[in-house]
Amino acid sequence: MADKPSRGLADVVAASTALSDIDGQAGRLFYRGYDIHQLAGAATFEEIAYLLQRGSAPSRAELGEYRAELASGRSLGKLVSAMLPDVAAAQGPMEAMRTLVSLASADDPDEASNAPDANARKAARLAAQQPVLVAAYHAARQGRDCPSPDPDLGLAANFLLQLRDEAPSDRDAEILDTCLVLHADHTMNASTFAARVCAATLSDMHSAVVAALGTLKGPLHGGANEQVMRGLEALRAASGAGDPVAAVAPAVSERLAGGEKIMGFGHRVYKTEDPRATHLRQMSAELAAASGDDTYYLMSRQMEETVFTEKGLYPNVDFYAANVYHYLGIPTDLFTPVFSVSRMAGWTAHVMEQHADNRLIRPDSEYIGERNLTWVTLSER
Amino acid sequence: MADKPSRGLADVVAASTALSDIDGQAGRLFYRGYDIHQLAGAATFEEIAYLLQRGSAPSRAELGEYRAELASGRSLGKLVSAMLPDVAAAQGPMEAMRTLVSLASADDPDEASNAPDANARKAARLAAQQPVLVAAYHAARQGRDCPSPDPDLGLAANFLLQLRDEAPSDRDAEILDTCLVLHADHTMNASTFAARVCAATLSDMHSAVVAALGTLKGPLHGGANEQVMRGLEALRAASGAGDPVAAVAPAVSERLAGGEKIMGFGHRVYKTEDPRATHLRQMSAELAAASGDDTYYLMSRQMEETVFTEKGLYPNVDFYAANVYHYLGIPTDLFTPVFSVSRMAGWTAHVMEQHADNRLIRPDSEYIGERNLTWVTLSER
Repeated sequence: MADKPSRGLADVVAASTALSDIDGQAGRLFYRGYDIHQLAGAATFEEIAYLLQRGSAPSRAELGEYRAELASGRSLGKLVSAMLPDVAAAQGPMEAMRTLVSLASADDPDEASNAPDANARKAARLAAQQPVLVAAYHAARQGRDCPSPDPDLGLAANFLLQLRDEAPSDRDAEILDTCLVLHADHTMNASTFAARVCAATLSDMHSAVVAALGTLKGPLHGGANEQVMRGLEALRAASGAGDPVAAVAPAVSERLAGGEKIMGFGHRVYKTEDPRATHLRQMSAELAAASGDDTYYLMSRQMEETVFTEKGLYPNVDFYAANVYHYLGIPTDLFTPVFSVSRMAGWTAHVMEQHADNRLIRPDSEYIGERNLTWVTLSER
Repeated sequence: MADKPSRGLADVVAASTALSDIDGQAGRLFYRGYDIHQLAGAATFEEIAYLLQRGSAPSRAELGEYRAELASGRSLGKLVSAMLPDVAAAQGPMEAMRTLVSLASADDPDEASNAPDANARKAARLAAQQPVLVAAYHAARQGRDCPSPDPDLGLAANFLLQLRDEAPSDRDAEILDTCLVLHADHTMNASTFAARVCAATLSDMHSAVVAALGTLKGPLHGGANEQVMRGLEALRAASGAGDPVAAVAPAVSERLAGGEKIMGFGHRVYKTEDPRATHLRQMSAELAAASGDDTYYLMSRQMEETVFTEKGLYPNVDFYAANVYHYLGIPTDLFTPVFSVSRMAGWTAHVMEQHADNRLIRPDSEYIGERNLTWVTLSER
């Protein structure tokens, strides 16, 4: 307890993992040894979820079985189905995700077991369930029925079908699928770390994932993608009849001069461009062109240039994800829940890894308060 | 990323805190500079919750206002009240606590704000609400109404009234009150650390507390007190017509020889007796004598002796807490929820401390998997 704390555990190695690796200097990200640039556009989210949760790239037969497992995990449990309308009416999206996943444990036959096979089944169910929860939540608050999943569609396409209440184009589904691949895991990010701290008490997978959802919600973590979009929307609204793209540079400069942070830029680990941002920028450009209104894309490009010129900061995963989700027709307040659809693959895999070789995560603290006080009982105060 | 991880962050200083301090060598625990031995029996839980949440021992007037604040926080919100029967029917106690606190944010007027005054109000409400949630959960699963709180009673006495459906003796209420004082905070224990990891993304207090509840549930943390009691119950049942106290030493020796751990012994931080155990042992003896059946107390004393002789391990906070809760008539599966009633004071205070001087908690990891693999697309697999 003699040591000074490393603020925020920056550069402290808190765990060993075989799930993902980051080379922050070179701007590279790997899932189980595969460079993210190889995976983006070449692997489906189901293959990546399998890779993370089960340890290796699936054969065709293994993927077929895993997809069937996911498909059967798309029906919501009794307790969740019964309570979803009231929860959707009363709670915001991330609060509702926290509540609904906590409720969902009641209908999971493996709830109480941390055995590897039980954990693997729960991991698949949680990954299958999360997009359905987000879509069903959205349908409930819109007062409409959520369409039944289509067994011929993959996870991303089904999610768009259920969320938008109409079948997506193949390309929209592919782009969302790539987004999910890009967000699936990222070493000891805060929500994953929270999940591991929870799992290391030998608590169960649902508890760990609920901890992760509450942590992802924070604006310094998963909540940032929504904040990026709200910033762009506010800037566009404020520019009135003027050119919103031209309004970006002066507005950003003014904020930076005032010491404000611009959401979506910089990352504790990457010292160069976040490799995920490269793909998201490209997809944003494609969707913007196809949409007939590339304003947000052009505003984002301008913002990227201004922030880099003035602060030397690169866009992170949240910055262009905001654009992509927007052009995919996803409501802004569901951006962080969409992040959770993907990161569920990583969280569940980390819980399994923690349980497989566990030690309680219980750090020390440095005491900075007063010492050796004498308690005066209330009758003498 | 070159360093090897410290397994479980043992001896790594993860944060600064003015809330509590442990001297593990001397077996001392302090809340804001006051030795726990001064506080046990001399301070009420309300005074300690105020001390932790608001920074100093309350004056009589401050305590009066705070108690009024707690009293008004005892009514459950609409969403929680509506769903409690179904949750109680479907979920175990700690799963239900996780769900109900997540639901409760919907009815908190300060939900979305992390401002210090909003956080202080939420902290008081969460501390006031937790015993009512535990008691109302128990009443619901018993199919009876939960008695209304008595505004003249303190938190511990009210909890026993609502839980047992009859007013407790003054001494029972005092003893539970002292238990709550002893469990209120304990530096960077796993659930508190999970709460701080969550809060450090600037997520909200309810999310952080929900993360903490799921973490407390684990048998290596808060779940241990229940496991201690289940162990005693099993041993007593197995001894049949024989003397259960005489059965302890051979049974414990056999388990230790087989490499098993005995729940309730040893602690990462204390290298001598846990100062909380001293008080809990004493209260256990008193309640056992008054109950007319001191079997569990005598079994526990024997277990303590055997484990110390064979392993040199001391009982921790969970060991005699199990006895005390049992003699207070608390059902065994509610022992960990009772722990949460107390630790809520610490969790909420840590969230406020984290928000007041925040940095994202985002450690590094050591990568131990394969490297530089080449992805083969599915069509070529």
